[in-house]
Amino acid sequence: MVQAARHSGTADRRSVFELFPRRLPAGRRYGVVAGVGRALDAIEAFRFDPAAIAALEGVVDPDMLDWLASYRFTGDVWGYAEGEAYFPHSPLLVVEGTFAEAVLLETVLLSIYNHDSAIASAASRMTLAAGERPCIEMGSRRTHEQAAVAAARAAYVAGFDASSNLAARAAYGVPSTGTAAHSFTLLHDEETDAFRAQVQTLGVGTTLLVDTYDVAEAVRRAVEVAGTELGAVRLDSGDLGLVARDVRAQLDSLGATRTRIVVTSDLDEFAIAALAAAPVDAYGVGTQLVTGSGHPTCGFVYKLVAREGEDGELVSVAKKSTDKVSVGGRKYALRRLSPGGTAQAEVLGIGEAPADDGDDRSLLVPLVRDGEVVGRATLDEARARHRASLAELPRAITQMSAGEAVIPTVFEQ
Amino acid sequence: MVQAARHSGTADRRSVFELFPRRLPAGRRYGVVAGVGRALDAIEAFRFDPAAIAALEGVVDPDMLDWLASYRFTGDVWGYAEGEAYFPHSPLLVVEGTFAEAVLLETVLLSIYNHDSAIASAASRMTLAAGERPCIEMGSRRTHEQAAVAAARAAYVAGFDASSNLAARAAYGVPSTGTAAHSFTLLHDEETDAFRAQVQTLGVGTTLLVDTYDVAEAVRRAVEVAGTELGAVRLDSGDLGLVARDVRAQLDSLGATRTRIVVTSDLDEFAIAALAAAPVDAYGVGTQLVTGSGHPTCGFVYKLVAREGEDGELVSVAKKSTDKVSVGGRKYALRRLSPGGTAQAEVLGIGEAPADDGDDRSLLVPLVRDGEVVGRATLDEARARHRASLAELPRAITQMSAGEAVIPTVFEQ
Repeated sequence: MVQAARHSGTADRRSVFELFPRRLPAGRRYGVVAGVGRALDAIEAFRFDPAAIAALEGVVDPDMLDWLASYRFTGDVWGYAEGEAYFPHSPLLVVEGTFAEAVLLETVLLSIYNHDSAIASAASRMTLAAGERPCIEMGSRRTHEQAAVAAARAAYVAGFDASSNLAARAAYGVPSTGTAAHSFTLLHDEETDAFRAQVQTLGVGTTLLVDTYDVAEAVRRAVEVAGTELGAVRLDSGDLGLVARDVRAQLDSLGATRTRIVVTSDLDEFAIAALAAAPVDAYGVGTQLVTGSGHPTCGFVYKLVAREGEDGELVSVAKKSTDKVSVGGRKYALRRLSPGGTAQAEVLGIGEAPADDGDDRSLLVPLVRDGEVVGRATLDEARARHRASLAELPRAITQMSAGEAVIPTVFEQ
Repeated sequence: MVQAARHSGTADRRSVFELFPRRLPAGRRYGVVAGVGRALDAIEAFRFDPAAIAALEGVVDPDMLDWLASYRFTGDVWGYAEGEAYFPHSPLLVVEGTFAEAVLLETVLLSIYNHDSAIASAASRMTLAAGERPCIEMGSRRTHEQAAVAAARAAYVAGFDASSNLAARAAYGVPSTGTAAHSFTLLHDEETDAFRAQVQTLGVGTTLLVDTYDVAEAVRRAVEVAGTELGAVRLDSGDLGLVARDVRAQLDSLGATRTRIVVTSDLDEFAIAALAAAPVDAYGVGTQLVTGSGHPTCGFVYKLVAREGEDGELVSVAKKSTDKVSVGGRKYALRRLSPGGTAQAEVLGIGEAPADDGDDRSLLVPLVRDGEVVGRATLDEARARHRASLAELPRAITQMSAGEAVIPTVFEQ
């Protein structure tokens, strides 16, 4: 496309692309933006080194190769802050630059946003369902090895407490936690040997896995080995609510009243909600988290909404289609708030936002200016943004049953 | 776990882990193994460099850090060849080594197999549904940016013809193809300008996107610009079957009888099958491919099935659980064939396969011996294996409706 646009003299036309969802996944009440920080890293790193250029020989013309070799994004980007809630048609990113430089970012920006926001959107519902109980990300083995690192990061943005993915600790500072597998117990001649080895090397605060053989016998052995200050036991099979009640009673009867119960085993937000009344202290979530709990991608699109015309002015553009709604023109985005601070609507419009916004909160923040990243936030800031954004939404976000978006999207004239 | 096992003196016990599915995704008739080549690359590359060691300070003991710094896998691996069909409990990988060196590979092996096989399993059904018509992988933007490269590779193993992912071309030699986006048309003042620019730079064999404004008008302009030797037109919206019929008639009436019709727009195996009677020449598949068409992970597990006992002999081990079936002991795996060469059953057993297999085909091939990769196959070999494996299965694999595994898994004594 860039090669052809350079041929027709349109490659340098100033252009505005927007990245947005056409809809929420069926039944979901809100979505959560994640991947902003990774996208900024990707924009900064988006270069074609000699190896990349060599790999493209024969794919594009030599003249294009020269252009790619000196490519760097020099435009501007605005977007929703990481951790923010989003709704249908929210303009999550607004990218302005020449057509050539902005269209080249399409795939990497969509990949990062579609993946990370799918994980964060599922994670947010899980942490809501878990209430005060911590959620631990344990899904690395059920997704692509690099996607796993991004998933741990996105889950942390959306309120997870920690991850078993050590690469996410190294790359992003996501807190690490872990547990033992059944293989560790099976490796030893006796279950007690495994427990003793784990406690001796990791301390009594560790989490012992108690469902390799007989749960009641394992709990007895665990407290025998670690004492009543044992940190936690983990249950990974069976009817978790029922077993947790039995184990809680047994732990209490043994004096291990502060030993926590961690449950795992294909949990999703519904299973977490169903365990609300059970004596469970923490949830370890794997497969359903890293696959977006039924919605592994957000379906975000990246569309040209305006570009320079022959006269140098920006012209709004949009595909004409009966089944895929696109609105041309560069958008503003506001969250309309009641006097009490509760979100009422996602308000979008073309051009500049009205000057007197009243209680409206502007959602687009500067992320890149003249090619330089200006909107980098820490993961702690993203976590705080996520909490604040949810606190502002109607309480119906906690509803696990299927429903419509919890606030409507309104296009203003 | 390794630190604790080193503490208890069990870390060096010879151990056998198996990677296998407990079941197929609901309704699927078979699965396809992919990621074998990537897993072999990962085993070779699995080292802890100084940066990785530094990142683990405080997570594990200094003694463990020393051990990790000199880690390399020195054991043996057998597995199903890439492209092979699999069924519930198929031992896709058998990993033998010390506990410490084999357990360390658990997450990366599961990540690669769970992701790549999920994509290949969906891709295989799509290529079956497409019959002789080529399928093109176009889903990079709907999945994690690195997962996208692996997805393009896995789809190619399972019969896709090409991918729009240029990194998959560079890394694995997956053939590249591409198309223009609506943004390219919208960038130009007139649709005809966009078509002319594309044809002039890419030749008349290119694929023109004809649904940005009015399809009939666009087809007329496309042939006007490119002539009757235009390579293809792409349709990305509307009722693809109906529109394809109209476009075919129009192209034929214009003399462009060899111009092909490529369709895209959230296709999955069912939509592809539904278009079998429409005049469509190729399918571009995105979201549903890279998300495994409803099953984004295979749910493979990696379980210790045998380990050295105190007497130095291997002991079969398995978790006792009512709801998660595991069979202890190292497996053999055979595809039982009828005299006519049709698969009858997936036959698994403990220990050595019976000497006289008759028509059975042994499924485990050597992949790694004493830490050295010995089982590397080319992607062309994996594609050939996929075709041969499907050709051997009962014809009911082409059934798109939900059903049971097309052959039963039989445990032999």
